[in-house]
Amino acid sequence: MKHLAILGSTGSIGQSTLRIVESYPGSFRVVSLAAGRNVETAFEQCQRWHPRVISVADEPLADELRARLKAAGISGMEVVHGPAGTVHVATLTEIDFVVSAIVGVAGLEATYAAVVAGKTVGLANKECLVAAGEILIAEARRRNVRLLPIDSEHNAIHQCMRGGAPQEVRSIWLTASGGPFRTMPLEQFASISIEQALKHPTWVMGQRITIDSATMLNKGLEIIEACRLFDLPPSAVKVTIHPQSTIHSLVEFVDGSILAQLSVTDMRLPILYALTYPERIVSDLTFDMAALAQLDFSPPDFKRFPCLRLAYEAAELGGEHCIALNASDEIAVEAFLTGRIPFVSIPRTIEAVLQQTPHRHPETIAEVLEADARARATARNVLALR
Amino acid sequence: MKHLAILGSTGSIGQSTLRIVESYPGSFRVVSLAAGRNVETAFEQCQRWHPRVISVADEPLADELRARLKAAGISGMEVVHGPAGTVHVATLTEIDFVVSAIVGVAGLEATYAAVVAGKTVGLANKECLVAAGEILIAEARRRNVRLLPIDSEHNAIHQCMRGGAPQEVRSIWLTASGGPFRTMPLEQFASISIEQALKHPTWVMGQRITIDSATMLNKGLEIIEACRLFDLPPSAVKVTIHPQSTIHSLVEFVDGSILAQLSVTDMRLPILYALTYPERIVSDLTFDMAALAQLDFSPPDFKRFPCLRLAYEAAELGGEHCIALNASDEIAVEAFLTGRIPFVSIPRTIEAVLQQTPHRHPETIAEVLEADARARATARNVLALR
Repeated sequence: MKHLAILGSTGSIGQSTLRIVESYPGSFRVVSLAAGRNVETAFEQCQRWHPRVISVADEPLADELRARLKAAGISGMEVVHGPAGTVHVATLTEIDFVVSAIVGVAGLEATYAAVVAGKTVGLANKECLVAAGEILIAEARRRNVRLLPIDSEHNAIHQCMRGGAPQEVRSIWLTASGGPFRTMPLEQFASISIEQALKHPTWVMGQRITIDSATMLNKGLEIIEACRLFDLPPSAVKVTIHPQSTIHSLVEFVDGSILAQLSVTDMRLPILYALTYPERIVSDLTFDMAALAQLDFSPPDFKRFPCLRLAYEAAELGGEHCIALNASDEIAVEAFLTGRIPFVSIPRTIEAVLQQTPHRHPETIAEVLEADARARATARNVLALR
Repeated sequence: MKHLAILGSTGSIGQSTLRIVESYPGSFRVVSLAAGRNVETAFEQCQRWHPRVISVADEPLADELRARLKAAGISGMEVVHGPAGTVHVATLTEIDFVVSAIVGVAGLEATYAAVVAGKTVGLANKECLVAAGEILIAEARRRNVRLLPIDSEHNAIHQCMRGGAPQEVRSIWLTASGGPFRTMPLEQFASISIEQALKHPTWVMGQRITIDSATMLNKGLEIIEACRLFDLPPSAVKVTIHPQSTIHSLVEFVDGSILAQLSVTDMRLPILYALTYPERIVSDLTFDMAALAQLDFSPPDFKRFPCLRLAYEAAELGGEHCIALNASDEIAVEAFLTGRIPFVSIPRTIEAVLQQTPHRHPETIAEVLEADARARATARNVLALR
C-alpha cells in the first residue's frame, strides 16, 4: 500500500491519478490532496477519497470547502490553503509518493519540499525541471530521492534507460508529433491564425501547451527536462518528428543499440508506471500491436521551428536562461492568443528576452521565482516596444 | 579481460566474433577455437590468435593442421579433433565465455558441456534451444549459468526484457522480414521456383536459412527458441511482419508498455552485447536515427505460411516435436533445393513427420540426437512415398 499526496488533484493528471487509484483498490491510499480554485471538484474528491488533509488556493476557498464538508456531515478532514498548505500536503509523515501536477511555477515550492522530506516524486510539472531542475535534481541526488517522470516522453526514456547503465547512454531521442504546422511551407507561417494554431492534429490539450506544440517550444522544454532528469548534455538530447506519436521516445546506447518505448497514448500509463516503479502491475491499457501498421520519422526543421534552437541554447546556458525561455514563452503565447502578435513573433519575443537574460544560476526556489518574475516583466517590455 | 572459446570459429558468427575481439584489444583473449573442416582458415586463425587449443573435425584434418603449424614454426598449440575435441575446447578451466556457433546438432554436446562446466554461453546455434532447449535451460538454471542469445531477434528481446522483471512480461513480438513471398498471392505459391525462393529481400545467408525465411519456418524456430530462453508459453510469443527489419523485436509488459530494440543489421552488435553483458561498451556500429523514415508492420498470414502454425503446434508439445520440426525441415528443404518437391510441399512434409512423432521429452543430449536421427529417417520415408 503506497500513501499518496496529489498536488494538482483537480487537474487532468490529478484526475487520471485518481482513476488509477480507483482501479487498484488496496494498492494506493490517498492521504492528501492539493486542489486549486475548483472547490466543487475538491469537495467531490473529499467525499470520494476522504483525504486526511486537503489544500485549496486561498482562505476564502478553504472556508467555503469547510462549510460544504460540514453541511455534508464529513468530519476529520484538515482543510488548509495557499503555498504553505500545499507544502503541508506534500510533506506529511505518512506520505510515500507525491504526484507533482500543479501547473506552472506554483508547483515548485511544494515539490522541492517533498524532495527535502525524502518523498518519491512523480513529476508532471514542467517548471520543476525547466526552471528549478538544477536545484531539484541536486537536492534529490543529495538525499537519494527518486524523481520519476510522468509525462509520456520522459517516462518512455526512463523505461528505455533500464536497458543499460546511465553512463552507457550515447543519446536520447524525443519523439514529437510535429504539431499542426509540420508540413506547412515556411512562407505561410507569417499568416498563421489563432484558430489554426489551436488545432492540434493528435492531442486535445490546454491552450498554452497546444500553441507550444505548434511552435515546438514544448519539445524544447522537454529537451531541457531530459538534460536535467537524465544528466545529459543538450547535444545528447535529440528530436525526431514522429506524427503517429506511437513511439514515445528512444534511448541510444554506446554500443549502437537503441531501445524505444511504445504504448497507447493514455496518461494513466506513465502515471501507473511511476506509482508502481520499480514494479509493473497488470493494466488494461493495451496497445494493439497486431493493428500497428506504419510509423513515420523525419528530422525536425529548425528554420520553421526556431523555438527548438532557442531551447538548445537555453539548455546549454542553463539557470536563468531556462527560466526565461519558459516564462517569456508563456507571455508571448498569451499575446498571440489575444491577437497582439503574429505566430512568428512568439520565438522572436523569446529570443529578445533571452538576449536580455543574465547568465546566472539561481540557488534557491525563491531565486527561481524572482528570475521567473523578472523574465515575465522583460517579455512584457519587449512586447510593449513592438 | 574475458577468456573466450569460439565454437564454429570459421563460420560467419565465429568470424564476426573475431572481428570484435580485434576491435577491442585488451578486452578479450581467444583461448580456444573449434573449427570444422576448413583447415586453411583454422590455420590462419592460429597464426593470428595463438589459441592454446584448437579443434578440427577429424584426425586427418588435425594431422594436417599440426603439420602446417610446425612448418610455420608455430608451437605450443594443442590440436584436438572430433566431438571430444570440441568439448575440450569448450570446457578449459580458464574459459569465461563460450560462443556457441557451430551449425546444426553438432553443436549440442559441447554447448551442453560448457553449461555443465559453468561457462557463460553466447548462443548462435538454433538447435541448442529448438532441439535441446528443455535440457539446456534446465541445466543452466540449476547451475546458475547465463545463456545469452546472439541472434538479432532474441538478443533484442533480451535487451527489452531489462525493462521489467521476467514475470512482468505479457508477451513478446518477434519481427519478421516476411521473406521474398510476403506479398505473393497464395495461388502463386504452387509454382515458386528454387531461384525465387533463394532471393531474400534483405539478407544474404546460407541456402537452408534462406529457404526457411521464405517458408517462415525460421521464424517458427525462433518462436520455440524464445519460449525456451525466456520461459514463455507459445501463446505469449507473437510475430509481426516488419519488412525493414529495423526493429529486431519487442517486449510487451503487463502494464501495457512495449519496449522495442532497433539497431543496424550487423551481427557484431548482438555478439558484442553478449560478450560484454551486463555492461555495454562503445562501438562504431551506429544506427542513423536521423535517417529513419518509415517502419511498416502487418500481421503474418498463417494460410500462406503454414510453417508458422506447425511451429506453434510443436512449441506447444515440446520435446521430440520441436526436434522433428527442425530435422524434417532440413530434409524437406534439401529435397526442394534438389528439385524433388515443390515449395508448398516443405510444410506438408514437416506436417506428415510431426504426425508420426511420438509425444516424448528427451532427457539427455544423446536422446536428442537419437530423436533427431529418427525424425530425419521419417522425413526421408515421407518423401520417398510421394
